[in-house]
Amino acid sequence: MTVDAKLLARARRALYTGVISDVLDSLGYREHAMQPHVRPLDESLTICGPARTALYMEVFHVEKGKNPYELEIALIDDLKPGEVAVMGCPRGGRVAPWGELLSTASKARRAAGCVTDGLVRDVKLIRDMKFPVFAGGIGPLDSKGRGVVQAIDVPISCGGTAVKPGDYIFGDVDGVCVIPKRLARECFRRALGKAAAENTVRKELARGDKLAAVFKRHGIL
Amino acid sequence: MTVDAKLLARARRALYTGVISDVLDSLGYREHAMQPHVRPLDESLTICGPARTALYMEVFHVEKGKNPYELEIALIDDLKPGEVAVMGCPRGGRVAPWGELLSTASKARRAAGCVTDGLVRDVKLIRDMKFPVFAGGIGPLDSKGRGVVQAIDVPISCGGTAVKPGDYIFGDVDGVCVIPKRLARECFRRALGKAAAENTVRKELARGDKLAAVFKRHGIL
Amino acid sequence: MTVDAKLLARARRALYTGVISDVLDSLGYREHAMQPHVRPLDESLTICGPARTALYMEVFHVEKGKNPYELEIALIDDLKPGEVAVMGCPRGGRVAPWGELLSTASKARRAAGCVTDGLVRDVKLIRDMKFPVFAGGIGPLDSKGRGVVQAIDVPISCGGTAVKPGDYIFGDVDGVCVIPKRLARECFRRALGKAAAENTVRKELARGDKLAAVFKRHGIL
Amino acid sequence: MTVDAKLLARARRALYTGVISDVLDSLGYREHAMQPHVRPLDESLTICGPARTALYMEVFHVEKGKNPYELEIALIDDLKPGEVAVMGCPRGGRVAPWGELLSTASKARRAAGCVTDGLVRDVKLIRDMKFPVFAGGIGPLDSKGRGVVQAIDVPISCGGTAVKPGDYIFGDVDGVCVIPKRLARECFRRALGKAAAENTVRKELARGDKLAAVFKRHGIL
Amino acid sequence: MTVDAKLLARARRALYTGVISDVLDSLGYREHAMQPHVRPLDESLTICGPARTALYMEVFHVEKGKNPYELEIALIDDLKPGEVAVMGCPRGGRVAPWGELLSTASKARRAAGCVTDGLVRDVKLIRDMKFPVFAGGIGPLDSKGRGVVQAIDVPISCGGTAVKPGDYIFGDVDGVCVIPKRLARECFRRALGKAAAENTVRKELARGDKLAAVFKRHGIL
Amino acid sequence: MTVDAKLLARARRALYTGVISDVLDSLGYREHAMQPHVRPLDESLTICGPARTALYMEVFHVEKGKNPYELEIALIDDLKPGEVAVMGCPRGGRVAPWGELLSTASKARRAAGCVTDGLVRDVKLIRDMKFPVFAGGIGPLDSKGRGVVQAIDVPISCGGTAVKPGDYIFGDVDGVCVIPKRLARECFRRALGKAAAENTVRKELARGDKLAAVFKRHGIL
Repeated sequence: MTVDAKLLARARRALYTGVISDVLDSLGYREHAMQPHVRPLDESLTICGPARTALYMEVFHVEKGKNPYELEIALIDDLKPGEVAVMGCPRGGRVAPWGELLSTASKARRAAGCVTDGLVRDVKLIRDMKFPVFAGGIGPLDSKGRGVVQAIDVPISCGGTAVKPGDYIFGDVDGVCVIPKRLARECFRRALGKAAAENTVRKELARGDKLAAVFKRHGIL
Repeated sequence: MTVDAKLLARARRALYTGVISDVLDSLGYREHAMQPHVRPLDESLTICGPARTALYMEVFHVEKGKNPYELEIALIDDLKPGEVAVMGCPRGGRVAPWGELLSTASKARRAAGCVTDGLVRDVKLIRDMKFPVFAGGIGPLDSKGRGVVQAIDVPISCGGTAVKPGDYIFGDVDGVCVIPKRLARECFRRALGKAAAENTVRKELARGDKLAAVFKRHGIL
Repeated sequence: MTVDAKLLARARRALYTGVISDVLDSLGYREHAMQPHVRPLDESLTICGPARTALYMEVFHVEKGKNPYELEIALIDDLKPGEVAVMGCPRGGRVAPWGELLSTASKARRAAGCVTDGLVRDVKLIRDMKFPVFAGGIGPLDSKGRGVVQAIDVPISCGGTAVKPGDYIFGDVDGVCVIPKRLARECFRRALGKAAAENTVRKELARGDKLAAVFKRHGIL
Repeated sequence: MTVDAKLLARARRALYTGVISDVLDSLGYREHAMQPHVRPLDESLTICGPARTALYMEVFHVEKGKNPYELEIALIDDLKPGEVAVMGCPRGGRVAPWGELLSTASKARRAAGCVTDGLVRDVKLIRDMKFPVFAGGIGPLDSKGRGVVQAIDVPISCGGTAVKPGDYIFGDVDGVCVIPKRLARECFRRALGKAAAENTVRKELARGDKLAAVFKRHGIL
Repeated sequence: MTVDAKLLARARRALYTGVISDVLDSLGYREHAMQPHVRPLDESLTICGPARTALYMEVFHVEKGKNPYELEIALIDDLKPGEVAVMGCPRGGRVAPWGELLSTASKARRAAGCVTDGLVRDVKLIRDMKFPVFAGGIGPLDSKGRGVVQAIDVPISCGGTAVKPGDYIFGDVDGVCVIPKRLARECFRRALGKAAAENTVRKELARGDKLAAVFKRHGIL
Repeated sequence: MTVDAKLLARARRALYTGVISDVLDSLGYREHAMQPHVRPLDESLTICGPARTALYMEVFHVEKGKNPYELEIALIDDLKPGEVAVMGCPRGGRVAPWGELLSTASKARRAAGCVTDGLVRDVKLIRDMKFPVFAGGIGPLDSKGRGVVQAIDVPISCGGTAVKPGDYIFGDVDGVCVIPKRLARECFRRALGKAAAENTVRKELARGDKLAAVFKRHGIL
């Protein structure tokens, strides 16, 4: 049930979250879309790859004699090519768990990108390097003394959606979908088929066919 | 009291929501602006035309043997040139009642655009076709099993503002105003006058005149 | 402890909110960043200068025989070159305390820009004139009969952060920081040093060094 | 169209917000109920009388040489028997504009009670004196340096509802209704009639009649 | 797998939501508790029985020639002894879908009570009749022209939790749990066992045993 | 600067949050009141004592082979007579970090009570034992697999207010104040004085003196 590199490359090139989302629905898996405040820094970039997770906790002091970035650093330094760092943060937080230096380090490891429901900073430099980052907002505050990664490679919640290590993340200008590992191959295959069908529908609608007729003909909308 | 095509064309070309809003205020109609989370997909496009309304309800299952898109399809297939589809959605919803296929079908009917306080998907393709869509957010989730249009051409609420069928919608980069049908002609006329006066004010301020003096001279700000 | 023009110019050119924020943290001043819904109209512009404050109150009628813009006009007409107008608004407001005419007037006085947690209108024209405005949102509603400036040059709250007259405002694509007047010189100096160190870190990470090693070497992230 | 003392006394004794609300609806006035977070301190007390209004502004410092309670004191000292003090506060505030000392002073003037969408403190003592207070919450913070009454006897908003000086306030365990002055007499009269009809309906339902039959018979629910 | 009357009676008498919730967790069903704003009108009453559901939609006008209460009346008139009416409402609504007349009618049919995430009115009379009602708040506004039941006996969401017709509702002073029909018998049985064990734990803690020791001994907390 | 047992006993008996809050304001410490959603389970009980803190993190799975209650148990088992357990939780959580068994264990250790901005369960039994608990809400969900105490006796945030180990907690029907350890003795002393003065003011107002006169005489409100 693994997703081979070729299928993954096709998915990244030809798919979009709308069709991924419809297919996950049809597979009976409906809680797959992050809340709409999780937005891409660069709307032209697509992210697609297996999740490496981190779980953030809000804190209210700096613990002496301890590196506050320890687990965060461990996760980034261990990223494999194509993996997506997913940082789950407490609601309402004002901390940026991601920024340009982590992006630079991740890119050097050929990671696929980062998704977080926390904030991100150094937006300009991250955009310049074309590294896909999806975040819950933008803000300058460092996490030191405000948030600490308490665990990595555990189940988390990000953007209101459960993410398990190894789940596939698919994000583009329309949002971010989380695909359970065991459904990923099936999902990508079906989505490639549905994307083709939508092209037909689009052409018929563009030439002026009534929606009612087109929907009757193809059963998709 | 109808708005003729020529006036409508002038309004679309020369007006902007700021001046529309000020004139509606001066006409004693103050609850006319949608909440600021309703934003244009493309900030360079203006929307202006009479509203065709749809009322969305959140649902939690797919009813068997029933087309979940029935009324939605009926509304789009019946759009006349220049009309604006306005989809009122329940607060906090995560469903996209609008997307690229509906945009394509509406554009083929020469509709003026769409306004919704729900989400929209297929953002890239909609932007590419330069079809004006204003929405409460962006997200990939289809409405099937999550939301159903329960009535069309009835009074609704969209972006916190009452919209009746036939009211004029005026939207641009600054937001969306709803103009009651019976005020539309008067509103457009006065707004064209006020827009001219603002040009004078702008020039005087740009050359360094004090605000106090300019406001005393023209009474507008 | 004043900030001379040369230091201010260097700060404006070479600094960014991330490094400002880290330095303020290190100076023990941690409540300095406005909430992330305060965003720049133009993400390419930086704002930097001392604050001139205005305190808005929501109102529910127009007082007869009174200029509702009186204090607002007084503030703008009194702006000195390089100053930043900061308009603190009640939470949840839908009024735009700032727009194109105020921008034009402020620019004519060579003010550095405007920051508000209220809304702004005439966005297109403001962007065209490259005047830096940071706002809590975009909307067309004028303040007349909805909001009145009740005091100027007093302590306010803007974007959830305390701002005193004379505090330095530093804003860019990553958000807005408020620097207490007495810390400004020290903050800018340290920030220039830290920015240089971050360049080194960036290079080492870009060539593939592990985060753990780089952090051990430089102690910054 | 004034409400005489006898009608007012009957209304206070025999009516309840449910029937007041239904009658206001039937009179075409539908925006009359405060939001449900405005609750009575003592659920057994009813409040009914004309409004005396105060408009609160959030502030962030104590102005030197100025009595921060000036207008608040002026309003209370001027309350007439039967009047209701209505204090409109900014959203999200944490200040208590009302407490035991103001209650004691108002009661000594035989005021009917107080309604605020801000907080209230000294809850125990206020309950002990059986003085009707409806508030947006309970909290200990004094307004000094946090909020100031900026105007009295002006139109305000309280609990999301417009209140004009002289409007009738009717509050009980089910919430608070605002009755425009010009509708008050008609509203109380109709409500007394509807309350009688509801007694009949209640009896028929209690003995087991079907809702469908009872609604057909009386047209009310 | 049905729940017989005797087990149901024991459950109603001996159980409480805390132990129900723990058992549902242990059965792997974790999304079973309504959000905490759904509160009992009378904290001394327990509700327990199978759900009859209604799905509310917000509307913005009264449809002429149509009974706006039609489906609501149909549901109440069809309630069987022991059933719980569950009314799912749109978020942020200000309408009371339940009140005293519906309570009287339901009680006459020996229904077990009502749960809604909307508001309720006529609170005093409902409390007097000791009919268990759990609601999202209290308010006087009737649903006419504001909300309409669009479907009955369909899957809904209430208090953020999915409820299917026939699911068991268990509510008390600590909140409301939803028990899937197929788990109900097993859940009640296990809960009766766990409640007994908690009595032992309580005694040991009351006499001063350390939590660590007691938890080690019994494995529950 | 320690608070001796006698002063503490007097404070507990004679003081209330209103006067504590005013005195903390006058000492220049203004961020001392928890948000108003933190309410006492029993409005007749007062809590007063030094804080023992716990920091909760939201989690999304049960870690195998680990006691999820470890630190929580450690804190309770170590409570000294008169201490207050303060559990700081992430915003928006739905978990009850406190319940009847922890109350029983704490009471057996003669702790003064518990304050949390999370939820609490077993409300009836806790009220029966007259153990003071202040909480952000009521709900049945256990923390297992949803929340874990990550640290005890560290600085936390509770109800939007910073709490350090050893700070004094003072709570009653009006809310909860946090008194920094170093200010506690001074605060209690001044508050006892102010409470006496308020008794005089109350008498003068009750006999009908104008607020303006009384405020002029005593300078308090």
